[in-house]
Amino acid sequence: MTKNFADKLIEAVRKKGNPICVGLDPRLDKIPESIKQKALMLRNKDGEHLSPMAAAAEAVIEFNKGIIDAVHDLVPVVKPQIAFYEIFGADGVRAYVETLKYAKKKGLLTIADAKRNDIGSTAEAYAQAFLGEVSIFEDFDDEVVMPVFEADSLTINPYLGWDGIKPFVEEAGKYGKGVFVLVKTSNKSSGDLQDLEMKDGKALYEIVGHLVESWGADEVGENGYSFVGAVVGATYPEQAKKLREVMPRTIFLVPGYGAQGGGAADVKPCFNKDGLGAIVNNSRGIIFAYEKQGLMADAYTEAARTAVIEMKKDLEGVL
Amino acid sequence: MTKNFADKLIEAVRKKGNPICVGLDPRLDKIPESIKQKALMLRNKDGEHLSPMAAAAEAVIEFNKGIIDAVHDLVPVVKPQIAFYEIFGADGVRAYVETLKYAKKKGLLTIADAKRNDIGSTAEAYAQAFLGEVSIFEDFDDEVVMPVFEADSLTINPYLGWDGIKPFVEEAGKYGKGVFVLVKTSNKSSGDLQDLEMKDGKALYEIVGHLVESWGADEVGENGYSFVGAVVGATYPEQAKKLREVMPRTIFLVPGYGAQGGGAADVKPCFNKDGLGAIVNNSRGIIFAYEKQGLMADAYTEAARTAVIEMKKDLEGVL
Repeated sequence: MTKNFADKLIEAVRKKGNPICVGLDPRLDKIPESIKQKALMLRNKDGEHLSPMAAAAEAVIEFNKGIIDAVHDLVPVVKPQIAFYEIFGADGVRAYVETLKYAKKKGLLTIADAKRNDIGSTAEAYAQAFLGEVSIFEDFDDEVVMPVFEADSLTINPYLGWDGIKPFVEEAGKYGKGVFVLVKTSNKSSGDLQDLEMKDGKALYEIVGHLVESWGADEVGENGYSFVGAVVGATYPEQAKKLREVMPRTIFLVPGYGAQGGGAADVKPCFNKDGLGAIVNNSRGIIFAYEKQGLMADAYTEAARTAVIEMKKDLEGVL
Repeated sequence: MTKNFADKLIEAVRKKGNPICVGLDPRLDKIPESIKQKALMLRNKDGEHLSPMAAAAEAVIEFNKGIIDAVHDLVPVVKPQIAFYEIFGADGVRAYVETLKYAKKKGLLTIADAKRNDIGSTAEAYAQAFLGEVSIFEDFDDEVVMPVFEADSLTINPYLGWDGIKPFVEEAGKYGKGVFVLVKTSNKSSGDLQDLEMKDGKALYEIVGHLVESWGADEVGENGYSFVGAVVGATYPEQAKKLREVMPRTIFLVPGYGAQGGGAADVKPCFNKDGLGAIVNNSRGIIFAYEKQGLMADAYTEAARTAVIEMKKDLEGVL
C-alpha cells in the first residue's frame, strides 16, 4: 500500500529533529559569479555556447545542488518556487525538474510551490504532471507512462472550489503524495479577500480552513494528519491560532519566517500541542544567508548550513 | 506610447467581426495519428529519435499550427491552457512558447491561461516571464534582456489580494499587455468560495468584481475598457448579469461556452449594450470539432473552421 504523504513528512521531521523547509527560490543576480562564469563557458555537443536561458538554467541547477548538498542531512523538506524557474522559460522548467530530482536523490521530500488551480478536467492534467504519472502515445507501440515533475507535494489555490481541488487530492492519494491548499497567505494584502467577513461573522480564511480540513477528512494517516495540508503565513499568528483550532488534522506549510518578518514566536501557533502539525519555510534567509552573514557569495553553502542550524535553535526555543 | 491591451483587443474583435477566443488545449489522444506518427519518426542532429516527451511536444506544436492556420483570419484571439503543455514537462513548455509565437506571427492576440498567483516578489517573476522582459547576466558582458513567454495577456487568481495582482498590472501596463482576473469561474463547484455570502449580503464574487473594476480604474484605454479583465463563466448567466453592472469598464473572458454547456443566450449578459466588453472562449468545441461533426481526426482543421463559423452565427443571434 502507498504510504500517506503526511506520515512520510512527519517521519522526516522526526528523523531530522526539526520542521524546517528550505525554499529554493534562486535569483540569478545573487548566485556566485563563479557559478555563472562556468555556466556561460559550457558548450553543447556541437561545441556551441549555450543559449543565455540554457546557461541561466545550468547556473540555477548548480546553485541548488550546492544548497541541497549543504542542508540535506539537516532538514526534512525543500520547496522550489516555480516562478523563479519559469522566468527562464522551458530551460528553467528543466532546471526545476532537475532540482526536484536531485533533492529526491539526496533523501529530501519536495514541495512544488506552483499554486496551480483550474477547473476539473484541466486540474487533472496539472495533477498528473506534478504528482502522478502521464501516459502518452497510448495508441502506439511506443506507449510511455512516466512521472513528469515527480514532486512529493504541490501547493494549490482554492478559489475554484472542490472540483478544482479533487483531481489533486485523488492523484495525491494514488501516488502517496500531498497538497497544501492556500488558506491564509503571508503577504500584506492577503486580507483583501481572505479576511472578508462572512454573513455568519467568520472570515473567509476560516471558512476555507474548515473546507480544507473536510477535504482531508478521509485522507488521515497513521500519525493523525491528512495529506491535504494548508498554507498559513507566519506573519498572521492570530489567524494561525484560530486555524490551528479548526484544522487539528491538517499540516500547515508556514511561509513568512525570516525575510518576510515572521519569527519563532509567530510560528508557534501553527503547531499542535504534540509539537507537530507544521513545517516552516525559509527561502532567502537560508539560500542567500551569505549576505546577512557578510560573506562573499561563494560562501553561500556554508552560510546556508549555518543559517539552518540557527533557525533550528530559534524554533527549538518555542517548540 | 504603448497601446492599451484593451484597445488592441477591441480593435481585433471589430476587425474580425466576432468576439471568439479559440482555446488551444491539446490532448495527445485526440491529435491525428498521422501527426503523432510523424513526430515519433523525427530525429535530432545526432540521428537519434526524440524522447517521448519531446515527440509529444512536436505533435502538439504541429496540431496547434494546423488550428491557427485554419482560424487566424476568422478570430481575434487564442488562449492556450498551460496545463496541457506542462504535462509534457520542459518540452511541453517549449511547445507552449512556440504556440504563442506562431499565433503572434499569424496576427492573433494571445491569452496565456496559466492562472498564476503568488505574493508580490514572486508574482513579479511570473509577470516578467509571461508579460514583460527578463534581464539576465546583468553583471556580465553577456547581459541579455528578452521576453520569455511573450503572451499578450495572462489569467491570474485573486485569492492573495492586491499585492499579488499589482506586479502583473504594472508589467502589463509597461508592455501593452493585459490580465484577466478570475471572478466567477465556469465549473460546478465555483460557488464553494465564490458564492459565499458576505456580511453585507453580497456574494464573494461580487466583492471580487468590485475589486477588479477598481484595480483597472486607472488603466482604461480609448475605447472605455481597462486592460485588467475578468474571467466570468458562461455557465452562470445570472451572476454574469450582476457583474456586468458593477464592472462596466472590464472586459470579460468567458469560458464555458460549448462543451461545458453554455450557449449564446448564456453569454449575452456578459456583453455591454455597445455589443462589446466580452470575448467568448471555446476550446474542445473547436479544436476537436471533428468528433462532433463525425469526421476523421485528420479533418480537424476544416472541422475547426466550420465550428468557428457556426459559433460566429450562433453569437450573432444574440449580440
